[in-house]
Amino acid sequence: MKQSTLFTKTRREAPKGEVSRNAGLLIRAGYIHKEMAGVYSFLPLGLRVLNNIGVIIREEMNAIGGQEVLLSGLQNPELWKRTGRWDDAVVDNWFKTKLSDGTEVGLGHSHEEPLTALLTEHLSSYRDLPKAIYQIQGKFRNELRAKSGLLRGREFIMKDMYSFVRTPQELDSFHEQAVQAYRNIFSRAGIGDRTFRTFASGGSFSKWSDEFQMLCDAGEDTIYLHRERELAVNREVYTDEVLAELGLDKHELEEVRAIEVGNIFKLGTRFSESLGLTFTEEGGGKKPVLMGCYGLGLSRLMGAVAEALSDEKGLRWPKALSPFALHLVMLPGTGAKESAEALYGTLSARGVSVLYDDRDISAGAKLADADLLGIPYRAIVSPRTVEAGNIELMERVGGEARMVSEAELFSLS
Amino acid sequence: MKQSTLFTKTRREAPKGEVSRNAGLLIRAGYIHKEMAGVYSFLPLGLRVLNNIGVIIREEMNAIGGQEVLLSGLQNPELWKRTGRWDDAVVDNWFKTKLSDGTEVGLGHSHEEPLTALLTEHLSSYRDLPKAIYQIQGKFRNELRAKSGLLRGREFIMKDMYSFVRTPQELDSFHEQAVQAYRNIFSRAGIGDRTFRTFASGGSFSKWSDEFQMLCDAGEDTIYLHRERELAVNREVYTDEVLAELGLDKHELEEVRAIEVGNIFKLGTRFSESLGLTFTEEGGGKKPVLMGCYGLGLSRLMGAVAEALSDEKGLRWPKALSPFALHLVMLPGTGAKESAEALYGTLSARGVSVLYDDRDISAGAKLADADLLGIPYRAIVSPRTVEAGNIELMERVGGEARMVSEAELFSLS
Repeated sequence: MKQSTLFTKTRREAPKGEVSRNAGLLIRAGYIHKEMAGVYSFLPLGLRVLNNIGVIIREEMNAIGGQEVLLSGLQNPELWKRTGRWDDAVVDNWFKTKLSDGTEVGLGHSHEEPLTALLTEHLSSYRDLPKAIYQIQGKFRNELRAKSGLLRGREFIMKDMYSFVRTPQELDSFHEQAVQAYRNIFSRAGIGDRTFRTFASGGSFSKWSDEFQMLCDAGEDTIYLHRERELAVNREVYTDEVLAELGLDKHELEEVRAIEVGNIFKLGTRFSESLGLTFTEEGGGKKPVLMGCYGLGLSRLMGAVAEALSDEKGLRWPKALSPFALHLVMLPGTGAKESAEALYGTLSARGVSVLYDDRDISAGAKLADADLLGIPYRAIVSPRTVEAGNIELMERVGGEARMVSEAELFSLS
Repeated sequence: MKQSTLFTKTRREAPKGEVSRNAGLLIRAGYIHKEMAGVYSFLPLGLRVLNNIGVIIREEMNAIGGQEVLLSGLQNPELWKRTGRWDDAVVDNWFKTKLSDGTEVGLGHSHEEPLTALLTEHLSSYRDLPKAIYQIQGKFRNELRAKSGLLRGREFIMKDMYSFVRTPQELDSFHEQAVQAYRNIFSRAGIGDRTFRTFASGGSFSKWSDEFQMLCDAGEDTIYLHRERELAVNREVYTDEVLAELGLDKHELEEVRAIEVGNIFKLGTRFSESLGLTFTEEGGGKKPVLMGCYGLGLSRLMGAVAEALSDEKGLRWPKALSPFALHLVMLPGTGAKESAEALYGTLSARGVSVLYDDRDISAGAKLADADLLGIPYRAIVSPRTVEAGNIELMERVGGEARMVSEAELFSLS
């Protein structure tokens, strides 16, 4: 894509009132737009990052048998009343609205109820199980405070998967498969080395849950990390009893701040019993289906990466998340534009995903924009490189630059 | 995909209270689930259809320069007050809700206001124009009556594009480009021969608009069609004056029922003036940006196709929309399962998108399900075909069957 055609522009300062680092940088770079506190729109570059995260998540969810759906945002109160979660005193972050006939309906903050109810029409026998069903969808949560940019939004994009199984053994087994799938996702997203499985509270659903916490000083959570064992304990359950259960020695743990980038729960029969999701066993007799849920915020992951991997110059995308594989920057002067145009044509034809900065503005402004946008590889075509007959390739992380031939750029895709 | 693993099941009857043909069939076939009147969730097969429509739309929008974004559902009332569209007396289908501090916010039924306001931060000069920006996103409209299934929902998936230009000539020119892009979309979606550009009212925005109406007896609209000129007039503007302007002779027109599957408007400066979206002209001086909008409901298109192209046995998807290219149906008996499994493996490896009915149920039930699901090509592997050493290939439309070799199936993708 030619940068001159992109409708977004970079800006020097974050808008007033935007206190978070992640949203501040993403707004300055033209990836997102703030509609109101905790509500952001995704502009072309930001949507590309979100879509890249979506591709990784879909592949990993499909690999463990996930079937994708897209449930509605509007929520039927009848289902939530049956599980006792309609009341604002029980769930304190509902957005509610009214149909034109006055009936109150909710906006989905999670989808256990509608999916469990839906499945009563499709599952009935032990032969129909196990199943795993997921969606990538906009969620609405009426947060009291929303000052962390994409890390805690009133509206955000989330992947939520739900598993439906027959036995506690199947539930445990799928839980561990999901843990591995999550590890794959964070590894592919470029944050595997700083993201740790974390023992946490199960909230209102179960005794414990597994969080995935990415180390970051701006995180809302405090965790106690055993680096060698790649395991952590959330402060909320940091007790001698839990440490003993996990075989962790207090003195080997570091207290660190982190951002929760994923959370998986065993729900048991909490929802299936209330909503009548049962199955007939092989030997006859009915049992409620056992369930698990597996959440991962795409927009939060985008925000977490922006928050943690950026530097004073701007964003620094891991390769798999970057909106483009390569930023081709033409620095104006004799022969540069012609040479850059030809290279852009060649790279595009070869299937390399390129953002081509063809703008006629100063070299300083272009390089500052490139730093801010944070594409991992930058190829510079200038009068100097044209004369030398090669291209300067620089990595955004580390800043190492070397002269390369055109052909060496083809491998970037 | 193996049909035995698909979590959805077909059903003989539509649920009580579902009066529309499109939703009735789609629910019976397991493509969608009704959450409440006018609110549907998309199950794996339905989501695949929706995604296929999305691929076509994105390609055609990108081809005319569209840049994709994803705007928020939650709407800031301040922007809508500035255009006079916050008041329920002006826009009668708002869903509104409240932030935890009591501030009222809306749910997006359309996105002229937020996008126009957003662009004031990115567009300023004649050099920044023209631009076209679109999204594919869930919309919310508080319809009084919602009895037409996917044709008129309270929540639905829509593509909305907005153009931003400098002159009335540019507006006209982009409008005609969009008309051609819409024609391409409907043609690729398999309804080109029954969808007509239709002269219609411009509502509150402009004098006229262009609708795309697909002929269907269940449609809400009455149009007057000139088949040879591939042009129609909506009853709402069917006057002698309009006919004269379009050069249409009343006696050459047919009165037919149709479903609106697309609608494009020239907005002029209706929104840019209220929201301060101006540009500096080449010779200096400021002008409000001219705008157009281009709507197309993905879920409505899916419903329209289900409504119009189905028969008494079930759905009949055009190739480009079908959830799978081929339905491989194994009819149990000597050698059939082994042969079908092998064929499924070969086809999958060749990249053919196949739904493989591997279930051990009666041939009658399997063929009835295949008719209901409506995949355009069906390959039958039975003891008889195994013995003959070939495969029976049948087309869902027309029902023509012929014996083919394995290799002949490879071209279906």
